[in-house]
Amino acid sequence: MLPRVSKISPRRFWRPLFRRSFSASSRWSVIRDISALEPRLSPRYQECRDGDLLCLEWPAPPRNILLVKKDGEPSVTESLVEFASHITSTYPSISLVLEPHTAAEVHQTLSTPVYTSTADEQLPVAVHEKVDLVVTFGGDGTILRAASFFATCYNVPPVLSFSMGTLGFLSEWKFAEYKRAFREVYMSGAGVGDRTMVLDCPRPTSSDERVESEMGPTGWSSIRGKSMGSTRGARILMRNRLKLGVFTRDGAPVHPNDGSRLPAVQAEHPGIYAMNEVLIHRGKEPHLAIVDIFVGGRFLTEAVADGVIISTPTGSTAYSLSSGGSIVHPLVPSLLLTPICARSLSFRPLVLPTSTPVTLRLSEKNRGRELEVSIDGINIGRGMTVGMEVRVWDEEMRRGENDWHGGVPCVMRRTIGGEAHEGWVGGLNGLLKFNHPFGEEP
Amino acid sequence: MLPRVSKISPRRFWRPLFRRSFSASSRWSVIRDISALEPRLSPRYQECRDGDLLCLEWPAPPRNILLVKKDGEPSVTESLVEFASHITSTYPSISLVLEPHTAAEVHQTLSTPVYTSTADEQLPVAVHEKVDLVVTFGGDGTILRAASFFATCYNVPPVLSFSMGTLGFLSEWKFAEYKRAFREVYMSGAGVGDRTMVLDCPRPTSSDERVESEMGPTGWSSIRGKSMGSTRGARILMRNRLKLGVFTRDGAPVHPNDGSRLPAVQAEHPGIYAMNEVLIHRGKEPHLAIVDIFVGGRFLTEAVADGVIISTPTGSTAYSLSSGGSIVHPLVPSLLLTPICARSLSFRPLVLPTSTPVTLRLSEKNRGRELEVSIDGINIGRGMTVGMEVRVWDEEMRRGENDWHGGVPCVMRRTIGGEAHEGWVGGLNGLLKFNHPFGEEP
Amino acid sequence: MLPRVSKISPRRFWRPLFRRSFSASSRWSVIRDISALEPRLSPRYQECRDGDLLCLEWPAPPRNILLVKKDGEPSVTESLVEFASHITSTYPSISLVLEPHTAAEVHQTLSTPVYTSTADEQLPVAVHEKVDLVVTFGGDGTILRAASFFATCYNVPPVLSFSMGTLGFLSEWKFAEYKRAFREVYMSGAGVGDRTMVLDCPRPTSSDERVESEMGPTGWSSIRGKSMGSTRGARILMRNRLKLGVFTRDGAPVHPNDGSRLPAVQAEHPGIYAMNEVLIHRGKEPHLAIVDIFVGGRFLTEAVADGVIISTPTGSTAYSLSSGGSIVHPLVPSLLLTPICARSLSFRPLVLPTSTPVTLRLSEKNRGRELEVSIDGINIGRGMTVGMEVRVWDEEMRRGENDWHGGVPCVMRRTIGGEAHEGWVGGLNGLLKFNHPFGEEP
Amino acid sequence: MLPRVSKISPRRFWRPLFRRSFSASSRWSVIRDISALEPRLSPRYQECRDGDLLCLEWPAPPRNILLVKKDGEPSVTESLVEFASHITSTYPSISLVLEPHTAAEVHQTLSTPVYTSTADEQLPVAVHEKVDLVVTFGGDGTILRAASFFATCYNVPPVLSFSMGTLGFLSEWKFAEYKRAFREVYMSGAGVGDRTMVLDCPRPTSSDERVESEMGPTGWSSIRGKSMGSTRGARILMRNRLKLGVFTRDGAPVHPNDGSRLPAVQAEHPGIYAMNEVLIHRGKEPHLAIVDIFVGGRFLTEAVADGVIISTPTGSTAYSLSSGGSIVHPLVPSLLLTPICARSLSFRPLVLPTSTPVTLRLSEKNRGRELEVSIDGINIGRGMTVGMEVRVWDEEMRRGENDWHGGVPCVMRRTIGGEAHEGWVGGLNGLLKFNHPFGEEP
Repeated sequence: MLPRVSKISPRRFWRPLFRRSFSASSRWSVIRDISALEPRLSPRYQECRDGDLLCLEWPAPPRNILLVKKDGEPSVTESLVEFASHITSTYPSISLVLEPHTAAEVHQTLSTPVYTSTADEQLPVAVHEKVDLVVTFGGDGTILRAASFFATCYNVPPVLSFSMGTLGFLSEWKFAEYKRAFREVYMSGAGVGDRTMVLDCPRPTSSDERVESEMGPTGWSSIRGKSMGSTRGARILMRNRLKLGVFTRDGAPVHPNDGSRLPAVQAEHPGIYAMNEVLIHRGKEPHLAIVDIFVGGRFLTEAVADGVIISTPTGSTAYSLSSGGSIVHPLVPSLLLTPICARSLSFRPLVLPTSTPVTLRLSEKNRGRELEVSIDGINIGRGMTVGMEVRVWDEEMRRGENDWHGGVPCVMRRTIGGEAHEGWVGGLNGLLKFNHPFGEEP
Repeated sequence: MLPRVSKISPRRFWRPLFRRSFSASSRWSVIRDISALEPRLSPRYQECRDGDLLCLEWPAPPRNILLVKKDGEPSVTESLVEFASHITSTYPSISLVLEPHTAAEVHQTLSTPVYTSTADEQLPVAVHEKVDLVVTFGGDGTILRAASFFATCYNVPPVLSFSMGTLGFLSEWKFAEYKRAFREVYMSGAGVGDRTMVLDCPRPTSSDERVESEMGPTGWSSIRGKSMGSTRGARILMRNRLKLGVFTRDGAPVHPNDGSRLPAVQAEHPGIYAMNEVLIHRGKEPHLAIVDIFVGGRFLTEAVADGVIISTPTGSTAYSLSSGGSIVHPLVPSLLLTPICARSLSFRPLVLPTSTPVTLRLSEKNRGRELEVSIDGINIGRGMTVGMEVRVWDEEMRRGENDWHGGVPCVMRRTIGGEAHEGWVGGLNGLLKFNHPFGEEP
Repeated sequence: MLPRVSKISPRRFWRPLFRRSFSASSRWSVIRDISALEPRLSPRYQECRDGDLLCLEWPAPPRNILLVKKDGEPSVTESLVEFASHITSTYPSISLVLEPHTAAEVHQTLSTPVYTSTADEQLPVAVHEKVDLVVTFGGDGTILRAASFFATCYNVPPVLSFSMGTLGFLSEWKFAEYKRAFREVYMSGAGVGDRTMVLDCPRPTSSDERVESEMGPTGWSSIRGKSMGSTRGARILMRNRLKLGVFTRDGAPVHPNDGSRLPAVQAEHPGIYAMNEVLIHRGKEPHLAIVDIFVGGRFLTEAVADGVIISTPTGSTAYSLSSGGSIVHPLVPSLLLTPICARSLSFRPLVLPTSTPVTLRLSEKNRGRELEVSIDGINIGRGMTVGMEVRVWDEEMRRGENDWHGGVPCVMRRTIGGEAHEGWVGGLNGLLKFNHPFGEEP
Repeated sequence: MLPRVSKISPRRFWRPLFRRSFSASSRWSVIRDISALEPRLSPRYQECRDGDLLCLEWPAPPRNILLVKKDGEPSVTESLVEFASHITSTYPSISLVLEPHTAAEVHQTLSTPVYTSTADEQLPVAVHEKVDLVVTFGGDGTILRAASFFATCYNVPPVLSFSMGTLGFLSEWKFAEYKRAFREVYMSGAGVGDRTMVLDCPRPTSSDERVESEMGPTGWSSIRGKSMGSTRGARILMRNRLKLGVFTRDGAPVHPNDGSRLPAVQAEHPGIYAMNEVLIHRGKEPHLAIVDIFVGGRFLTEAVADGVIISTPTGSTAYSLSSGGSIVHPLVPSLLLTPICARSLSFRPLVLPTSTPVTLRLSEKNRGRELEVSIDGINIGRGMTVGMEVRVWDEEMRRGENDWHGGVPCVMRRTIGGEAHEGWVGGLNGLLKFNHPFGEEP
């Protein structure tokens, strides 16, 4: 049985947010502390026979699901509530995690408790340990925000994304498909080989034991009959991130300021992961930025420009595209180095191997100026001064024994015969108006 | 003693080229048939500890070396003769292979015989079976020409390239370094582990037996003392090629015409390898080409353009660059799709995974027009008509057990601390004038 | 009264084409020689008060109208016949001029004679002297073809263009508007000031006398009542052309070959006018073209490229756009110099003053190669060899006393408050999909 | 005789700057008020026979010269002092005007008084009425700064610019040439026709009378003998400016803030002239700017971008170039519309006629955000909010009777046979490294 809200009462400072609710009409409409949830399950990602995507395989049904929505749009909030109601009624063993401000906004419209942390800035640490699956409601910005919770975590849960009219390149599913989409993710891997038996019959081993007993009649066994076939599994596009750090001229890692919404950098692993790009920009400074660029430890060039972007293939359709970069398929393991308004006729964008360390160092020639550093559109809240460096290095996304680390596993919408190219080609044509032909509209 | 020319006399039609030479002054100045040479040795390419390049490792000293030079430049011919004289005097067990027209041009200035085939167009088949190492004298065009001999061969020998004033992006070494460069390649792998012993003491096994006995005092054992240290091995940059075929609208493979200098396509493996790019172009046809592009089997777009390029990263600094493509590092496993003068404002160049099949199909809208198809700058000699396709698929460059196939192994110039980026960064700055700063020359 | 066909009978060799027709059913369905027509009228172009366009002002109603259509499209032919029937019935004093092959195709479906020349290649010279107004049926290609008849004539008649589904950037009118459009052009200037009186009352002065008396009841006086107001006049966008010549290395002008469809260059004025661009291209030559570019007599740069374009602003949305050139408004007096696939990272397109002579000289470095020269898409039929030059110089479009020379006067579609920008902005958005926003179609 | 410093004593608040100096060693080392100077002389600009440049023609020798230097570079200050000493000793009738901070910096090293205003921000108004000629010491930034003093003045004095190692595209002369350069400008027009006589013999007419009598032996008559020929005159490139205003959503003109260094906008003529460009930019605002663009009063497109630039041809080699704009020759009467990092694949830069009004309006979609507006790199010091507009309209640079208004008359360095293209072509090649060829440096 799920822990009751009284169990977290010792944390008194939560009071303003975690209100007990004894009213008859909404008995479960409570906000609970995310720490009460079971620890996170880590799925496996197997190579598929029929294409470039991976197959998601849960060790047990996912239990803790983080819902992230675009703010300020009532219709998106309504959709989130509709989704949440469906999940809690159909998959009773699932717990929903929300951002604190979202929890405060919607919990009274839900009949089950929701989980969150005391404050927005504390959510990232907690979700690393608890969340099995992320579901986003909104466009690319919402996905990026969800991914930013895991900006210091090498192991991101799968992300199921619903575009809510706010169309984006990364948003994969239409909200109308949500029931099918969620079931597909939830069931993924359930029907694979002997393991199914183990799941059906509670195993007497430590952690799994509790999983199965808690699931009771709501585990895969009760849902399976409704599945669309045991061989269907969710298809995953593992989107590479880039790992970066900002360092002082003495080599000490720089932590993002509190105001930046980025999780604190860990002392022993001073890296931050970016899903789209890291950007150095002159901001409102009228003078051009002067940045020394090193590739593989070797001085490449001095960029005199508004800024410099290092982007993932996923980010190749974002700022890098506006700055003249090529469009890079998400399965090409690469970094893009794209200048912004370079003071040169001959600074063509570069595509580099992911294994290559790249360093951007603020040249002494900048004198007292400060540049801005942004990660996936979030300003780190501190200016970059002469001698400071942004370093990008291999995110070590390894295929070790069918295991993947470092990327963002995005659940793709499957179409017959489709693969990684399906959504990408559709996005190029539908969203970017790639190679739009001349001539009048029909 | 080397076989005399009379041994190949049965092939009477060779006579005009393979002239006997009885003059006292140049007793060895003869041209012999390449078929008389030992079969080819295949080296291994090991990953290096210190970077992205591979280490060349010969199973035994290389014996048959193909020299390819830029034509029409007397100074280049002189350098080739100087190089050949050095090799034949210092490494007496080595045999030199030349293109027929080069053999005819230089054999009288050499004191040892040279090997070739009856005619230029027959050389490619023969070199697949005989040549251990390729040495080029000239710029990028000369390297491409040498590579074109192996356009239907998945296993290319290492290529050592000397730029001869004719500077190019791929030419790695200066001719002044030729003695050191050759020794480094020749010795590479000789000092590795126990195998050295085996090589020092002739092994009694089949094929190697003859190798060692023929080498006599000229094998590694006699040269080793002059080496610069047993841990030095030649560094190899394995340049991806792309594998392509041209097909009729009925799906039958199209063979290049005789005049195209490309080797015949093999019926069972209808692929041709391109080091730089495959290009469809309207040629002198005044109308724009209309090409349907498929990526991963899915229709991507209809290009209306002067042409379409599919390029390797190596080719990203060639025609694709002139057409607006990004510069892609040779270690990024990718294909570039770059239009030439597209009739669209929104056809941004694409970078695709090598694992993705790409098809260019001549649209029905082209009516009776014929397009030209070129592979690494060589026109295949046949027009492409409506419904015909250029298909590009994975070149299957595998890392299976430290073995590599499909690429062109280029011997890199080592500098202290340098890796793959060394030459690339140097080429960007020195040759392409990448990001050339504004301001007057000093 | 109009001359009868018998008047041209002395030119016996015309017989195969100019068949007499005595059948009762199609008494006028005959083809006559264009030489029988009255000489051309030259309109004036006045600056308008309300914008950048000019006002067309005929000295007398136009009489000889050249109709040019896109070939190979039956529906376009039908539209031409419908238009011709309307004109000949409503404006009986008007004579229609057709290209010989068009005359042969349609004359039997018309009830009035049509005028043409013996052969297509003789038409250009004849139309210079006879044609008052050109009407095109088709897209940009058709307008360019019509303009090419005047490629050696500095004084082009007004061009009224109907897009026939074949949409183009220059085609201004929809065919459905043809009655209104033609009347507007025909009447233009008729109601201006005192001159109207003069036109209504035949003047006793030399050339005009015959004009008026011949017009009889079909002049402006009979049509005026149907006009939409005497202050409406046709609006003209004077599209600059560029004047160019091709010269041997000895400075002698080169004449286009017979096969090129371009009119012969006149010995004393060796210039050809281009409406879109002049283009040097390597054609099917595999080597890059090497072209020395001189601006204002001073060496600017050596272009190593597939080709070089010199374009008018009108041509800035044609080939130059595909090659990366900016979009230049047709009222900016300028030349665009745009390279095609230059072998350089730093060859940014240039915009030059029309007063600046520009010379493209084939460098000695091209050795024996031949480049192709095209003017508005028409190959001049002769290769360009080392030392030959394309020279572009001022087309001398002067505003002398409200008189304009050198440009192509295009009749614009008027909208309320619209000016030159109307059609241009519409074309950018409707045809070029300029700045097409991201996101899905509604 | 020149007024003494005591004459300006009534303006007591000047004291801190205008120090009296009674020391014997530097009796003239004083700073005087610019109001004491004679009123400005306006030269004429005649068309030259031999090219596109204009000829400068003074009505009388120039008297008041504004010297503007790059700050913070001691060597530049030394050069200014050297120049000033030469001028005051060789042309004693000339008075030097300096910026207040420059006057304070250098006046003690000069043996003659210098003129300035009380404060930097008051200089612009004063120089409009007094300065005959501007001389700059520094790069493009210094010229722009000098031009900014005249940002609300339609009639700019000639500008003679010395590049001081700080190379720029606009800086025309090398400092080593300063004696020749100044004499050429000073004498320009002196030897033309009968007027010379008038100048030699003091005319008894009103304003000129005092001019001549004051000149005494230091007018043209005394210098002429040293001239290099009476037919030599300074060549002027009249660089178009663009005239713009910033308006609230109610249509009221917006004045730059005090901190912006721009002169106050005049109520009746709310225009500001820009020599390079006007720029709207998101600055440090993370969201993209959304700008509605109107051309000729018609809506063209909605730009979603980092910013939008409207540039003169002179500015086409500045920010517009970095943003992908074409290079436009300074003699093409045009405006460039170039987006900065547009969120679109199809926003190609535009070149528009100068006669076309262009409006940039901040879209309602920007919500509460503020954009930054800069004119020639100077932030106007006020944010731009929703509904506000930047309007650009014709600067009315007219050729009325050989008279020119609105542009910046730049004194060009003459070379034999050279014209406007001379410096421009040199700048493209020498500074921009235009079309820099591939290959290693010699």
